[in-house]
Amino acid sequence: MPAFLTSSPGKVILFGEHAVVYGKVATAGSLGLRSTALIQTRTDMTISATLPDVQLDRAWSVADLPVQERWTEYPFPPPTMNADLLDQLEQIVNLRKQTNRSQAAIALLYLHAHLATKAVLEQGFDFSVRSSLPVGAGLGSSASYSVCVATALLQINGFLTPEMDNATKRDLVNQWAFQAEKVIHGNPSGIDNTVSTFGGAVAFKKGQIEPLPEFQSLRFLLTNTRVPRETQVQVANVRKRRDRFPNIIDPVLDSIDSISVSCKELFSHHNLTRAELLAQFGDLIDINHGLLIGLGVSHPALEKVREISSKLGLKSKLTGAGGGGCALTLIRDDVTAEVVEAIKVLLGAEGFQCFETSVGGPGAGVLPLKQNMPMAYFLDTDKEALDARAGWQYFA
Amino acid sequence: MPAFLTSSPGKVILFGEHAVVYGKVATAGSLGLRSTALIQTRTDMTISATLPDVQLDRAWSVADLPVQERWTEYPFPPPTMNADLLDQLEQIVNLRKQTNRSQAAIALLYLHAHLATKAVLEQGFDFSVRSSLPVGAGLGSSASYSVCVATALLQINGFLTPEMDNATKRDLVNQWAFQAEKVIHGNPSGIDNTVSTFGGAVAFKKGQIEPLPEFQSLRFLLTNTRVPRETQVQVANVRKRRDRFPNIIDPVLDSIDSISVSCKELFSHHNLTRAELLAQFGDLIDINHGLLIGLGVSHPALEKVREISSKLGLKSKLTGAGGGGCALTLIRDDVTAEVVEAIKVLLGAEGFQCFETSVGGPGAGVLPLKQNMPMAYFLDTDKEALDARAGWQYFA
Repeated sequence: MPAFLTSSPGKVILFGEHAVVYGKVATAGSLGLRSTALIQTRTDMTISATLPDVQLDRAWSVADLPVQERWTEYPFPPPTMNADLLDQLEQIVNLRKQTNRSQAAIALLYLHAHLATKAVLEQGFDFSVRSSLPVGAGLGSSASYSVCVATALLQINGFLTPEMDNATKRDLVNQWAFQAEKVIHGNPSGIDNTVSTFGGAVAFKKGQIEPLPEFQSLRFLLTNTRVPRETQVQVANVRKRRDRFPNIIDPVLDSIDSISVSCKELFSHHNLTRAELLAQFGDLIDINHGLLIGLGVSHPALEKVREISSKLGLKSKLTGAGGGGCALTLIRDDVTAEVVEAIKVLLGAEGFQCFETSVGGPGAGVLPLKQNMPMAYFLDTDKEALDARAGWQYFA
Repeated sequence: MPAFLTSSPGKVILFGEHAVVYGKVATAGSLGLRSTALIQTRTDMTISATLPDVQLDRAWSVADLPVQERWTEYPFPPPTMNADLLDQLEQIVNLRKQTNRSQAAIALLYLHAHLATKAVLEQGFDFSVRSSLPVGAGLGSSASYSVCVATALLQINGFLTPEMDNATKRDLVNQWAFQAEKVIHGNPSGIDNTVSTFGGAVAFKKGQIEPLPEFQSLRFLLTNTRVPRETQVQVANVRKRRDRFPNIIDPVLDSIDSISVSCKELFSHHNLTRAELLAQFGDLIDINHGLLIGLGVSHPALEKVREISSKLGLKSKLTGAGGGGCALTLIRDDVTAEVVEAIKVLLGAEGFQCFETSVGGPGAGVLPLKQNMPMAYFLDTDKEALDARAGWQYFA
């Protein structure tokens, strides 16, 4: 099999963080920031993994790696995780437990153990990944990795055939990516891998995930304040505030629920111009941020992003757990490149890290590489740059 | 009659601005910033008015001023305003119409026309007022003036007798102050004069005003951003946002309603320590401000107050219509004088005007002056300083 790339996006929460904990609807979208994997077959019956972003560079002899017996749903994943297999892989990988590096390696080998076919077992492969997603910033970098792994192992073992429809491909990739996420996180919600696989945007509520097919791709500036997030602390603070003032906080959660509903409706109003849609989307951003202040989860660094962007007429909100982490700033179509540059300079001067990106772009995809294709394909993890070199087969 | 002082506070909205327009409860409190009037009888049958804060310094011969015939409810005000009398006074005063100066003079003479008794008509009096309230900042400076006028004219004409109970005195002062407010504003809500007369704090909803007798006086820093308020613009913007997103904004208004309810409950929880009460009051301030951002009525200058105060661990919210105007910062009992000085310096450096004051203090009062009492009594409009020289008879 010739070498190929797999690629999948990170995710951001657009609306509904925290409220989702109380059974409200939240909205998330795929990010233009992506992870990309290069898969090349080997001839020495070795599986190698090169993940510079988590400092992993290891190789294992295929003969030393466990392989699972086939089960009923094959090639869809078995219904329960295999704890014995996880223990076994932990010993083989033998890295400090529960680190990104260790979990990434175990997730790869866990999927290999289930999906390996004869051809792969007799050859081996090299699996290399780069990501433009900051790790641990709430942007779904691990799900993006998991989707890359799942797509890669399904592709190299021949399960993503040209005859298979995209809906089945998506489903197969998403289910295996969810297994990889379980290896990495224990008890993930499934939202991150779904957004990374499907791309676009989704609404989710109590574990139910609904794609938003009418969502249009939007430009954003994503700002990492570099203030460490403490998700559990923020979730606990909101709970305390709600316990103390239920009659104040419950309507706030209802209001946030309606923001996700209004977001979905915005994209169904076919009589809205794009400019009107963006103006109203900006209002939703502004309102949701105010309500998050009401929940007590903002931070001076996030307010600084709001201050700077509002000076230039742009709307921002925190995204994720708050108390630090990232903020999203909507870049309307009429915003000039000079304004975007200005805001990036101003935010950079505060020590923040800015990413100009899109939300709502494609999900997982495969790009078969032609002979002698330059490595630039692989190293450039910018989706637009990758797209410019046509040939990507996205499943969504 | 010996000279005497009357004094009454300004008001500040603690919670519920904007939501009150939609029939929700709002909470307002009396400010430590007050207006104080000095009333001295004359012997030349002249009424003079000296109001340096609005550049008024005029005198009229008693004989030239209209006096009303007595009516059924006397000395309580008649049920309707007398438009002919207002026209007549406008001609007598003969100042540029609808200015603070003109309205203040007409209000004084309108109450005089109704309340003047024989003794006063045969002597005249001088009425001088100073106020520490900024004019036109939404802090009830006109109501505070109206209450001073009403108290002064009721006192000099002998209607506030030692035998009368305080409840009746309050009611009488408040009803006449409301008449003066109608002269000044046309269609006032009655909230400002009620807070100024009663002091303390009140909850109000759809024109119904409920005193909050358990409210404890709290220290605040009041910051005038000097950004001009445009109340009608802000009210219209909230209405637009609500028309567009009713399912988002209505729960926000419900939440704000619950903040006023929770505020009232806080002061009824007799098992809360003062420190706990202040911490929870701070949470209510923080939540209400976030919701006001959600309504779209904050302003960069108000956010700057929040930024500076939050650096020093203090909670702030905008007060009034927003889009400029004033912000309130709660000064907990444990905040040191150094911290208060620091925040005043930092806010002053932004060009803002700061007032260290209290909310929830006494309402209208009278202080009979002894012979040869120094004018410092009159010139010092700080309530604490006035209180320090005992003898004030507050009606609430």
